[in-house]
Amino acid sequence: MQIKILAAGGTIDKVYYDALSDYSIGDPMAEELMQMAGFSGQYRVQSVLRKDSLDMDDSDRSALREAVLADDCRHIVITHGTDTLVQTAMALQSLENRTIVLTGAMQPARFRDSDAAFNLGGAVALCQAMPPGVYIFMNGRVFHPERTVKNRVAGVFEECT
Amino acid sequence: MQIKILAAGGTIDKVYYDALSDYSIGDPMAEELMQMAGFSGQYRVQSVLRKDSLDMDDSDRSALREAVLADDCRHIVITHGTDTLVQTAMALQSLENRTIVLTGAMQPARFRDSDAAFNLGGAVALCQAMPPGVYIFMNGRVFHPERTVKNRVAGVFEECT
Amino acid sequence: MQIKILAAGGTIDKVYYDALSDYSIGDPMAEELMQMAGFSGQYRVQSVLRKDSLDMDDSDRSALREAVLADDCRHIVITHGTDTLVQTAMALQSLENRTIVLTGAMQPARFRDSDAAFNLGGAVALCQAMPPGVYIFMNGRVFHPERTVKNRVAGVFEECT
Amino acid sequence: MQIKILAAGGTIDKVYYDALSDYSIGDPMAEELMQMAGFSGQYRVQSVLRKDSLDMDDSDRSALREAVLADDCRHIVITHGTDTLVQTAMALQSLENRTIVLTGAMQPARFRDSDAAFNLGGAVALCQAMPPGVYIFMNGRVFHPERTVKNRVAGVFEECT
Repeated sequence: MQIKILAAGGTIDKVYYDALSDYSIGDPMAEELMQMAGFSGQYRVQSVLRKDSLDMDDSDRSALREAVLADDCRHIVITHGTDTLVQTAMALQSLENRTIVLTGAMQPARFRDSDAAFNLGGAVALCQAMPPGVYIFMNGRVFHPERTVKNRVAGVFEECT
Repeated sequence: MQIKILAAGGTIDKVYYDALSDYSIGDPMAEELMQMAGFSGQYRVQSVLRKDSLDMDDSDRSALREAVLADDCRHIVITHGTDTLVQTAMALQSLENRTIVLTGAMQPARFRDSDAAFNLGGAVALCQAMPPGVYIFMNGRVFHPERTVKNRVAGVFEECT
Repeated sequence: MQIKILAAGGTIDKVYYDALSDYSIGDPMAEELMQMAGFSGQYRVQSVLRKDSLDMDDSDRSALREAVLADDCRHIVITHGTDTLVQTAMALQSLENRTIVLTGAMQPARFRDSDAAFNLGGAVALCQAMPPGVYIFMNGRVFHPERTVKNRVAGVFEECT
Repeated sequence: MQIKILAAGGTIDKVYYDALSDYSIGDPMAEELMQMAGFSGQYRVQSVLRKDSLDMDDSDRSALREAVLADDCRHIVITHGTDTLVQTAMALQSLENRTIVLTGAMQPARFRDSDAAFNLGGAVALCQAMPPGVYIFMNGRVFHPERTVKNRVAGVFEECT
């Protein structure tokens, strides 16, 4: 079992810099979370972007596409800011022969209480279990990009009706 | 999306009692982990057993079977001690029409560094994604009970060759 | 042993709001930290301000003074943003008959890795151990307000030379 | 400011070994806790013993005495199992010219919820603040060895009446 994890930034990787009294995006936490999980397959974490997902544009999404294509790994997890995660998932749907699962976190992985480890566990499981395609794992549920929205007020991902 | 979580005890739920200088099995941590994950479906956690899995016998496995059958939920997660987790998975294989995923942890969920949240996330994802049957999610990988062993020395689950 | 803890906000109490992709100051974490520490004396946590300490002005410092004076407790801990912590300590020096210890954190207490619990432990110890006066406990050291500066670049409190 | 930390084992340093389904005493956690606290003075952590304090005998206490005497540091913290912490404190009282503070934890430092960081913070503060002598910091309070008992049922340190 071989898994490739692409980190695009977002809340999951946020750190707190006292010098700025501000949050910023740090090294991908996927590395530490995979160690903690005792993952016994092979994996590689690649930091592609370090952006708040609201700041991502088309060229950023192209960079993610290129990173997926540059690797022949068939099991891909992408950690991503939640605000435009669905949009990026849509942009990757034309990629074939790969199971791609996007996830992120509502609370930084560096917090004591965070959904990051749970979400990454789900994404790692799904990229092994699902047929080729693009999926989202957030709030403990499996979503299909074209039928998903982030309800920003409630802070949850939902199926479109 | 409705998920039923059955807790059978094991390392994942271990607490430390200073009064005894010893550990013991506490309340199911699945409840707290699901809250932290912001699961947006419905779920219920039921504590069936509080045992080290080495101490489980046939009547304990019957109790777990009964607990599965007593509920008409089709997505079942079982948190379980790792030492006889495979054995219990085998004992549940005759149950039909349900996707049952067993998981546990090598380090108690109450530790700062634990595989518990990651494993539960994977199990929650798989019980939605897989066809009816019994599966194991440990060390970040999806296992089939009849082809799995816990390598106790290495502390990892492996496929049998 | 009776201790009064006044919370003035600052990094120690910061939370992360995904809805805003921003942090803000939440409930005083001193309450949770004292529970976790198993403090066996009596204590009361009072939230006086919820400000980044750079935003504090003279009326805020007066409010803190009033809060100290309104209580006859002789052991006072103040959790405070670090940027103007020394300034507030100076403003409290005329208060008599009380041992007042100011502390804070470089990383929010809600982070897995934070100096918050350590710092609060030190402040709680010092307010019992020191004669009446105003002290600072940061970076594991006891400081006197009039001889202390925060080195913002290095992110540490230092004695003035 | 120079501090010497001697680790004698005890709950504070306990790890969980899945291979044995048991707890055991690991590397001193004081090192990690001091890093996390951003201690800006100099310190050194020395592992003297790795014992449950109920298993300590006179020769272990002699080893601790020797370790204190071998160093000319005047600010000493000892992390210790809680069950015989008072006894060890008494055995060190004849040592002169040093401020020695003993502390420990009711919950292992590796747990998410532990009193370890708070207690170490208090001990580090006290060994700077107090005149030469031997002190205990547990449950957020400063104790004098000859007037202290651990109430094992309640799990708290108390003053003798």
